Amino acid sequence: PPATPERLGDGLSWALQAAKEAEDVAAVDCSGHGSVFLDGVTGEDGRPGCECNSCFSGPDCSVRIPNCAADGQGGDPLFLEPYWKRHAAASAVVFSGWHRLSYITTDGHLKSVELDRQIRRLHRAVGNAVVDDKYLVFGTGSTHLINALVYALSPEGNAASPPASVVATVPYFAMYKSQTVMFDGREYRWDGTTAAWANNNSSRNPTRGFIEFVTSPNNPDSTLHEPILAGSSAIVDHAYYWPHLTHIPAPADEDVMLFTTSKLSGHAGSRFGWALVRDEKVASRAISYIEESTVGTSRETQLRVLKILKVILANLHGKEDIFAFGYDVMSSRWRRLNAVVSRSTRISLQKMPPQYCTYFNRIKEPSPAYAWVKCEWVEDDDCYETLLAAGINSLTGTVNEAGTRYTRLSLIKTQDDFDMLLERITEFVDAEKHGRAPAASSSM
Amino acid sequence: PPATPERLGDGLSWALQAAKEAEDVAAVDCSGHGSVFLDGVTGEDGRPGCECNSCFSGPDCSVRIPNCAADGQGGDPLFLEPYWKRHAAASAVVFSGWHRLSYITTDGHLKSVELDRQIRRLHRAVGNAVVDDKYLVFGTGSTHLINALVYALSPEGNAASPPASVVATVPYFAMYKSQTVMFDGREYRWDGTTAAWANNNSSRNPTRGFIEFVTSPNNPDSTLHEPILAGSSAIVDHAYYWPHLTHIPAPADEDVMLFTTSKLSGHAGSRFGWALVRDEKVASRAISYIEESTVGTSRETQLRVLKILKVILANLHGKEDIFAFGYDVMSSRWRRLNAVVSRSTRISLQKMPPQYCTYFNRIKEPSPAYAWVKCEWVEDDDCYETLLAAGINSLTGTVNEAGTRYTRLSLIKTQDDFDMLLERITEFVDAEKHGRAPAASSSM
Repeated sequence: PPATPERLGDGLSWALQAAKEAEDVAAVDCSGHGSVFLDGVTGEDGRPGCECNSCFSGPDCSVRIPNCAADGQGGDPLFLEPYWKRHAAASAVVFSGWHRLSYITTDGHLKSVELDRQIRRLHRAVGNAVVDDKYLVFGTGSTHLINALVYALSPEGNAASPPASVVATVPYFAMYKSQTVMFDGREYRWDGTTAAWANNNSSRNPTRGFIEFVTSPNNPDSTLHEPILAGSSAIVDHAYYWPHLTHIPAPADEDVMLFTTSKLSGHAGSRFGWALVRDEKVASRAISYIEESTVGTSRETQLRVLKILKVILANLHGKEDIFAFGYDVMSSRWRRLNAVVSRSTRISLQKMPPQYCTYFNRIKEPSPAYAWVKCEWVEDDDCYETLLAAGINSLTGTVNEAGTRYTRLSLIKTQDDFDMLLERITEFVDAEKHGRAPAASSSM
Repeated sequence: PPATPERLGDGLSWALQAAKEAEDVAAVDCSGHGSVFLDGVTGEDGRPGCECNSCFSGPDCSVRIPNCAADGQGGDPLFLEPYWKRHAAASAVVFSGWHRLSYITTDGHLKSVELDRQIRRLHRAVGNAVVDDKYLVFGTGSTHLINALVYALSPEGNAASPPASVVATVPYFAMYKSQTVMFDGREYRWDGTTAAWANNNSSRNPTRGFIEFVTSPNNPDSTLHEPILAGSSAIVDHAYYWPHLTHIPAPADEDVMLFTTSKLSGHAGSRFGWALVRDEKVASRAISYIEESTVGTSRETQLRVLKILKVILANLHGKEDIFAFGYDVMSSRWRRLNAVVSRSTRISLQKMPPQYCTYFNRIKEPSPAYAWVKCEWVEDDDCYETLLAAGINSLTGTVNEAGTRYTRLSLIKTQDDFDMLLERITEFVDAEKHGRAPAASSSM
């Protein structure tokens, strides 16, 4: 290779080809109903094709699939994809082939020192968490940190101490239980719902040896929560505690807090989360877990998240504030959904009043990530099935131990997903006056 | 933003700025003894500075640190960094801000379908593993798959079955034990060394209920190994089974095999590994573990690894074959180290004969990743301490249960690391005729 590489055009040399490839792929027209990705499946021409949103198909995603069911099931945060398409230049990042080959980044760390700094800057600027007296632990998604923190808060594995009891309040995020049960350490065990133990909870009889999962705002019902069991450890999952998805009454300051890019910037596929931990020993045990499990988190992801956070920080409180963008999308979706469901006696949503938000410095309408749907009619004793019969896929409340009367609808997916969801819900509500489900129904 | 973005220079628009940033950082001169990274710690000028190789310092890494100890401890595969600097254009990759936000990639998978294809192509082209009858499981490094496979091979967690016994042969890779002990499931337990159970190993008394770790080539001693316990499950770690680090006698075809980019392409920081698994149920349990633990692996990493594998594939058997490049570096290091150590009565290395390699279609000199050093003198009963006193950091054989007579030297790090190592070893061997350690010694 030439010692001084030939300079082409803009003065670019080795990065030019990759930049062109990325722009070529991004320029493919998918009719606004899909995207092409560099690692998409290649067709006969050797090039990746459009990957279409739900309910669209065809080479350019222009064909709307007839009688397509609305998909309100998953928590895919694609409502922010348009934001990143608008900020293409600022958010792009180029990896050289030799970027961070080593296990080690700066100064012997497994994590990027710059990313640590930017995460702390972001929390300070948004005012949603107190970071100054906390250790920061990175994980491959906050998912990875669920078990890392359970491990870190459990008694050390000598025979004497009984295992910690891991509990959560109904309706809880199902993965707290499924992960605790699957990984099944000798130092901890899933021990059911918090309420079953709360009666023992007095100053005379503190509930030691418990690890209480709290999600705030809660998934699925989007309300703010605090730990219940006195004297126990709590892992407070603040995945949704950002100003586009909730009001922020004050900076959170629990001993152990969880965050993720997934619901902050929409980068779920990056698999990046972090914990803020007050106690040094707990942080150190969680870091040991992550090191032992995966030798830290992907360095590609760390660089990309660094870039994404810089864009977010540069635009806070400005015209292109991601939280203002996200809040507009989500509050509009909630308002439109409520307008339809308010005409129904058959289903209802969680009640959410307007609330003062310290970040926006005003009272805001709600903008929850999920609608928590209750089926009110006696005969609809499986709400998930009731909606499914109307062509609406949701996540049944049984996974949250909330029972079959409840089911969760995701509002954070693509605009196509939301539009389809609203269309099907409207048909469903309109059909009520006929006392039966709409035509799509096959179960009634 | 403009609907038709302004086209600049080479016809690039949104990717131009990121491409320039990456090239600017790469152009900083670190005297050949360091690199600048996009996510490096920024100085007062707001730009990341040089990160120097061991034993070098200064703003441009031009200052050699006097009396610096040689670092032969870690397994950082930086010997391949020069290859990627030579292939800068082909191996660069550009991420748009909206690349793969979703949890899901193509067709509902958590993994890239294209990457799956390229991994299989690579194994077929290199001839180091049979892939056609195997399932492919991705992990955040092969590290992540260690416990995923232990879980997958253990009896399902109902009370009736006793836990699986996890074992390995001395000298073994320490993480098999440390991870098994730390994660400490109820379905499996670390049960020591394979040899302790091999006596029970007959057709009359097969060793069922065992999970045997085998590393081939072995870490630390670089010899090829096969499972010993009949009737047991084996996890065969082929991290080093690539033609730059061993001869390839035949495609590996065990039921459960592990691979990693770390020792293939040098991308340790990417945290990417994969398992090839014959049995559908075992693969499916391992995938469940990965999904539950981290919801799959980073999509940034998957895209970058895809690009890296394409470069490797495009150059196989050509002038720029990565395995030819890596083999030249590693066989030269081994030859030079042996030339020095062969003059010593105090230390010896593992014996490695030339062997026929199906990939290169010829008999090759050895090119191991590690030197497995034995201290021969009676008084040197802690070989790690003996080398440390001579200014050489290594990894003591006690972590492999091989005892203090042995210690491991890494040969896969930067050329600077190897040069320093050879210098210190040469001093150490030269000092033998004086019947004592060289001047740097403080323990004798």
